[in-house]
Amino acid sequence: MKVMCSVNPGHCTLIKYIFLLLIIINLGLNTAESVWPLPQIFIPSSERYQLKPQSFSFGYRRYLDAKYSCSVLDAAFKRYFSILFPGYSYGNDTLQLSENEVFTLTISLDRHDCEGYPNQDSSEKYKLSVFAGQASLNAETVWGSLRGLETFSQLVYQDDFGSYYINKTEIEDYPQFNYRGILLDTSRHYLPVQAILKTLDAMAYSKFNVFHWHLVDDPSFPYQSHKFPDLSNKGAFHPVTHIYTQSDVRRVISYARMRGIRVLPEFDSPGHTQSWGKGQSELLTPCYRRGSPSGTFGPVNPTLPSTYQFMASLLKEVASVFPDSYIHLGGDEVDFSCWRSNPYIRAFMHKMGFGLDFSKLEAFYIEKIVNITSVLRKTSIVWQEVFDYHERHRFLSVVEVWKQGCYLCEVRSVVKAGLRVILASPWYLDQPGPTHNWARYYNVWPLAFKGTEKQKSLVIGGEVCLWGEYVDATNLSPRLWPRSSAAAERLWSNEKQTSCVERAFPRLQEFRCKLLRRGIQAEPLYVGHCKHEYQSV
Amino acid sequence: MKVMCSVNPGHCTLIKYIFLLLIIINLGLNTAESVWPLPQIFIPSSERYQLKPQSFSFGYRRYLDAKYSCSVLDAAFKRYFSILFPGYSYGNDTLQLSENEVFTLTISLDRHDCEGYPNQDSSEKYKLSVFAGQASLNAETVWGSLRGLETFSQLVYQDDFGSYYINKTEIEDYPQFNYRGILLDTSRHYLPVQAILKTLDAMAYSKFNVFHWHLVDDPSFPYQSHKFPDLSNKGAFHPVTHIYTQSDVRRVISYARMRGIRVLPEFDSPGHTQSWGKGQSELLTPCYRRGSPSGTFGPVNPTLPSTYQFMASLLKEVASVFPDSYIHLGGDEVDFSCWRSNPYIRAFMHKMGFGLDFSKLEAFYIEKIVNITSVLRKTSIVWQEVFDYHERHRFLSVVEVWKQGCYLCEVRSVVKAGLRVILASPWYLDQPGPTHNWARYYNVWPLAFKGTEKQKSLVIGGEVCLWGEYVDATNLSPRLWPRSSAAAERLWSNEKQTSCVERAFPRLQEFRCKLLRRGIQAEPLYVGHCKHEYQSV
Repeated sequence: MKVMCSVNPGHCTLIKYIFLLLIIINLGLNTAESVWPLPQIFIPSSERYQLKPQSFSFGYRRYLDAKYSCSVLDAAFKRYFSILFPGYSYGNDTLQLSENEVFTLTISLDRHDCEGYPNQDSSEKYKLSVFAGQASLNAETVWGSLRGLETFSQLVYQDDFGSYYINKTEIEDYPQFNYRGILLDTSRHYLPVQAILKTLDAMAYSKFNVFHWHLVDDPSFPYQSHKFPDLSNKGAFHPVTHIYTQSDVRRVISYARMRGIRVLPEFDSPGHTQSWGKGQSELLTPCYRRGSPSGTFGPVNPTLPSTYQFMASLLKEVASVFPDSYIHLGGDEVDFSCWRSNPYIRAFMHKMGFGLDFSKLEAFYIEKIVNITSVLRKTSIVWQEVFDYHERHRFLSVVEVWKQGCYLCEVRSVVKAGLRVILASPWYLDQPGPTHNWARYYNVWPLAFKGTEKQKSLVIGGEVCLWGEYVDATNLSPRLWPRSSAAAERLWSNEKQTSCVERAFPRLQEFRCKLLRRGIQAEPLYVGHCKHEYQSV
Repeated sequence: MKVMCSVNPGHCTLIKYIFLLLIIINLGLNTAESVWPLPQIFIPSSERYQLKPQSFSFGYRRYLDAKYSCSVLDAAFKRYFSILFPGYSYGNDTLQLSENEVFTLTISLDRHDCEGYPNQDSSEKYKLSVFAGQASLNAETVWGSLRGLETFSQLVYQDDFGSYYINKTEIEDYPQFNYRGILLDTSRHYLPVQAILKTLDAMAYSKFNVFHWHLVDDPSFPYQSHKFPDLSNKGAFHPVTHIYTQSDVRRVISYARMRGIRVLPEFDSPGHTQSWGKGQSELLTPCYRRGSPSGTFGPVNPTLPSTYQFMASLLKEVASVFPDSYIHLGGDEVDFSCWRSNPYIRAFMHKMGFGLDFSKLEAFYIEKIVNITSVLRKTSIVWQEVFDYHERHRFLSVVEVWKQGCYLCEVRSVVKAGLRVILASPWYLDQPGPTHNWARYYNVWPLAFKGTEKQKSLVIGGEVCLWGEYVDATNLSPRLWPRSSAAAERLWSNEKQTSCVERAFPRLQEFRCKLLRRGIQAEPLYVGHCKHEYQSV
């Protein structure tokens, strides 16, 4: 394992020695200090308290209405109880013992927003204090309290005799970036709902908060639309076994919400739409060869009014099915050759005065789609080409930067135009290459460009993209984890405290063992072992 | 997916068109023709017969003793019945119907070798004929009949309504190479026994016949020796949870044997032995720094008689525990710096007249170990360095070529010296790189060197190596499958019939779907889907 230090090598070496010293000093501390991603302010202590499943409980702060309950937290208590004490379940195994044996984690929320959905502006700030016999967790929102629960769960450890402990700890924490996403592609390979739910579990463990669902693309259209059932009837790999029904989608959204995760749907157009054409005739552009239709189709036909009627109708459905205030409209990799071959398209170009500049035609299309989305009161995200090839940036809101090369140059251009950015380029985890090199996903500095504070604040976050050419349920988990967790720490934690790969390595190794213990098939970082190896072979 | 043709591009293009033609002609044939690896002689037909789980049975040829039974085949009947008819089990679901509805696969063996173990010379030849109402499978040995059963199972397919069919078929088949191995490394990461057994299942599906068990190495010593229990007590990652007991080892050997797979144990020395030193003091060489022991240890100490007493005792145990007639002795990557630092080693070198040539010392050691192995009537395999760095080749038998570069040059040198070769270089599946590029494992031509027929016959086979630095039970299966199957076809099938990646691709895709159906977590080759996706998320 080649360990490197990027931002400041000298600094890293110094830190390395301090870190070694800390390890020596803390030998008695056990493993209480490893929380991944690293909290912003973290004051550990060597004072430890024993926890027992029989006498551990979660509670709401007393000054709240005695009848107060929050479905999101009640469900989280159950989940985290089984994570804290594997083999036990909350309620069944909780026998109240005498008062002084009880350990309670008490939660208070500043806002009682338990019924809503997380959104881009949701605070995830929390404060956690662990002391004798109790712990208190305060957050502004229910989503922040979920992050605090996750942190609490990572503080608990077992000694060699199986007893559970937690150390006295003070934590104040909040994310560096509000948008921390993972893209799954369910068009190139269908992913069973169970695989998506499992990924949402693992996302919560690394404090990711956006599931970017790249639902449809050229190879297949697995989303079962109630307005246009033929899209999946004819465009899915199989119309029954390889689709997401409305009930599947609701299940995914609800499961994600319970973990404080937004579901961002992507319906990429005008390119990447081959599968749409199977169930929606006249949507795609007929390509021509030597003056007559060749029988193949290109991108969406932007010249027909019927295209916009269809898109408005589909997006209206999507906007109502997916509660998130963002919709991803795609707009990447549009191939102009088919448009160019088609005489009707060329006539339209002439009429509109676009000359031979097909990017103007694309801009014309995208603007109309963005407008449809705005009317639906949704914020649209587009891939970077839409920004790159079009002059009128004013109609855009959020641009996702995905191309390789100097991606920070691109980020800088976008924020200079006053638009928000999501950075994906350095986190293409499906890319061939040294798959085990997690450090390349850790050593990423999204704000390392020249710009004002205000411009930097427009970088709203980043996203791991797991495209589906070579990925399905068989290899999804080991390909995502723990490498995505490296990106997760970059997006959550303080850059200065997490700039050295060498310090991160043992922490990430331990976090990976926690993932195994929780049933996540996270691949190894290097030679070694976990107390509890992955068993579900 | 970049498809290429290697041996002869023109040939491949021609074949491509013939193949397309065949696909068109065979549209009515369904998927009856896909057997992986491709049999040597394969005559399919469009005539098909329906199979029903209720009326399907396996049987032995009648002229045999009526009481004849073979434990290996009886167990195989059960396994393959559930593979043929998922959800059904043999015996329970077999209701004899009227004679003309029954379909029987009758097996005959030339040799009644059901009680033995497979070995390097075991014939795996078989002949399979499928016709109306019955099929007959003849093989020289029980191991050959297992290969035939596997082929038979791949011929059966389901139509869209769930009915089972098999087409009239004639097959004569035998492997190109007798040694077709997979190496698993249980030292860098411990693999639960269940993960090994699952791999043995998958190996049988691709007709692999050697499980090369790289049991121990520097990081850990998980083999629980009954003579030297401290080796695993002190050298394993954990003395209870991360070891292979004698009973575990017996289970693996028995499970492998039932599938016609040999278990080749490797106890690599004198290098790669750090973990041995923890439980066996004075085995390793103390390294010196500025005239005194530094506290670190190097390779096995080849100067002490106690070393050879220990090795003889350990290898005697290994020889009795592992029934295979081969033992892998390792001998790779010996670092001389520690030997060089030690004054006692230098004195020994002087006494023996080795000068400063430490490879002579290594040869001295290896010769002694090979002799110990010979006395135990086992054939030894060594890694290529032992051949490369030593003059006396006469004491060697089998050399495993593993280094990158011109590996065929090395193969040629070894066979010119009259020794047998196992080729591993092109099949290092753990290597970082484009992990999905299965074609690089397919386009390998082990005999493409200048040499006589006799020399070529010394290439006894090849082996996929899955080293454990970045592999454990979490990612073992998707990393091995279906890429190892590409190597499997290279080692089993006729090179001329399998020289074109383009033709192999759809067959391998279909075989991968069969692996999924059998519960093997085989990763996708490219965009697409299987009727039955992997569900055990």
